Amino acid sequence: MKIENLTDLFVHTLQDIYYAEKQILKALPKMAKQTDSPELGKAFESHLTETEEQVRRLEKVFELLGEKAKATKCPAIEGILEEANELMSDIKDPDTRDAAMIAAAQAVEHYEITRYGTLISWAGLLGMKDAATILGKTLKEEHGADQKLTKLAESRLNKEAAA
Amino acid sequence: MKIENLTDLFVHTLQDIYYAEKQILKALPKMAKQTDSPELGKAFESHLTETEEQVRRLEKVFELLGEKAKATKCPAIEGILEEANELMSDIKDPDTRDAAMIAAAQAVEHYEITRYGTLISWAGLLGMKDAATILGKTLKEEHGADQKLTKLAESRLNKEAAA
Repeated sequence: MKIENLTDLFVHTLQDIYYAEKQILKALPKMAKQTDSPELGKAFESHLTETEEQVRRLEKVFELLGEKAKATKCPAIEGILEEANELMSDIKDPDTRDAAMIAAAQAVEHYEITRYGTLISWAGLLGMKDAATILGKTLKEEHGADQKLTKLAESRLNKEAAA
Repeated sequence: MKIENLTDLFVHTLQDIYYAEKQILKALPKMAKQTDSPELGKAFESHLTETEEQVRRLEKVFELLGEKAKATKCPAIEGILEEANELMSDIKDPDTRDAAMIAAAQAVEHYEITRYGTLISWAGLLGMKDAATILGKTLKEEHGADQKLTKLAESRLNKEAAA
């Protein structure tokens, strides 16, 4: 796809985060299986449910633009998830692995936070109010997921890994 | 390197962000050259100066741990920068390219924000107060750089790309 103006860039970035969300949909169940912590497992599973809805929201935004929902390969999320996979298979100690998985999940959240933040700002500049509102709901959830992971990390899991 | 506990994971993540900072040191001058906007060029150059100091801070933290400063290949930052490079070479319109570069730089900032946030939290759990203080300075700068880019994006540059 040729990117000639901000609308094209908006669509390209939408395709990028659509790809990222689909990769995250595949990664979350694997991460939930890798932990012995019921709290962390539950956090991954509840974020999976959120992610399914986030994918539907992106499809709605494509629809508003009169575009077919399409995923464009996103090297950034591939790199983030590749790093997460490497750590998950390398670390044998369960508490240390949980700490690494939380850090990986937070890197994913921050990638989404930055991309949705950018898309919302561009939607505003392009006068796409409805798209901005839809994407805003997802951004709020990503911030919430990040904060939940910070609390989990600081309360219990990381203390066990440090013990 | 074998990761058996949170201290090992801390050192590994320090090596990961050390690699990332070094890649960013190489990327920023290229990004500054790609823009016609004096404000954006200045923002990239001033972040380059900050990044040089951030590299020195990481070396100080390695020293505090009695470890040699070492970089470990970080697929996440490679993916983020690969995506940025692709967009920079694909987009011919200068204002649209600026918008894409700001978005890419913010993705880099958010990667750093999440990694430094994690390292500071682990330094706290491991009783490494001095390391937490040093890394906290960098985290504050990364947040500042991200906010500066948001302002630039919303004030002038993206409006031109949308026009």
